[in-house]
Amino acid sequence: MNGPETVPTIDPNEIGPEACYKLASGLIVPRPIGWIGSTGPHGHNLAPYSFFNMVSGAPPTVIFSTGLVEGSEKDTLANVRATGEFTVNIVSEDLAPAMNATSAAVARDVDEFELAGLTAVPGDMVSAPRVGEARASLECVANNFVPVGTPPRGNVVVFGEIVLFHVADGVVDGTRVDLDALAPVGRTSGPGYVRTRDRFEMLRPS
Amino acid sequence: MNGPETVPTIDPNEIGPEACYKLASGLIVPRPIGWIGSTGPHGHNLAPYSFFNMVSGAPPTVIFSTGLVEGSEKDTLANVRATGEFTVNIVSEDLAPAMNATSAAVARDVDEFELAGLTAVPGDMVSAPRVGEARASLECVANNFVPVGTPPRGNVVVFGEIVLFHVADGVVDGTRVDLDALAPVGRTSGPGYVRTRDRFEMLRPS
Repeated sequence: MNGPETVPTIDPNEIGPEACYKLASGLIVPRPIGWIGSTGPHGHNLAPYSFFNMVSGAPPTVIFSTGLVEGSEKDTLANVRATGEFTVNIVSEDLAPAMNATSAAVARDVDEFELAGLTAVPGDMVSAPRVGEARASLECVANNFVPVGTPPRGNVVVFGEIVLFHVADGVVDGTRVDLDALAPVGRTSGPGYVRTRDRFEMLRPS
Repeated sequence: MNGPETVPTIDPNEIGPEACYKLASGLIVPRPIGWIGSTGPHGHNLAPYSFFNMVSGAPPTVIFSTGLVEGSEKDTLANVRATGEFTVNIVSEDLAPAMNATSAAVARDVDEFELAGLTAVPGDMVSAPRVGEARASLECVANNFVPVGTPPRGNVVVFGEIVLFHVADGVVDGTRVDLDALAPVGRTSGPGYVRTRDRFEMLRPS
């Protein structure tokens, strides 16, 4: 390993936006996957986002970031703006192929639930559909839309409060999640994903 | 596995904020770790955040979320507000114990770099220090602070643009990151972490 002084630098302005995207998404890993369900005038949509995380416990809040496509907002963002609602579905290992199928760029009126052979279950608290086959889903109400960058490039970060958790039997004991039962996958870059079986523990110092 | 209709629900309002935090942080995994370096009137600070991710490639932008402690902002947030700058350091497996050491709740004037035996290297573009031993670091300029929730609880989500990448030799080839060389770790809940060795690939459908 090199000494601290000799680590090479890369200037974002020199490599440009596509290369920045690839480099940053290769370094900032593993990313959790928010498989976002929404509904709108063109029907249901379902798509995976790895620019996704929780950002608060009180109130329980998640974010996901969606990119502009040639200056236009994607179906999911248009739906969430129109309805103020979305679901987050957790991608267990057995659902990874279906999740990948829903990442295809398809016409606005294509229902990715149907495309991937999944069951769209109406939310209890929101109009957005959740993935019936998911072992955990979150019903969310959008409460902030924060733009990043400048159109036609750039992203919009959607903030949503979790208003209801769905968690399958056997996955949670009280608030303790059994990761062997949930078996969530994470995202790296390009075609890459990680499982969450290779775990270790460290006690926080007092 | 239960059918779609029978997944039990959990109401955030019934379980309260602490339980929501635990449940959500157990379900939204694996989370990347942003080991945030900052500086301010009380000296250097270094602390890990797993409410962290990238949210845009153009401009390359990261977020991290920091909680209020009895209504007060933590050292890192106070520093970033004062200077407008921070670094993100990637936690490789060999640095995990040092990262954990910097998660201790210590007095404001304690330098976590010293506490954990790490080298604070001044940024090239920002005043905030980076971790000399890290295989990858990002120098960032803060450009937005978005509050979530209501004090004395709640969080602040800090947005920062990456203005310089530091990546050690052997970790990157062009923009392709070698995850075996970087060996980043991710966060689950409680004392839990994951390695990123157990990987698989799926080609995105066309």
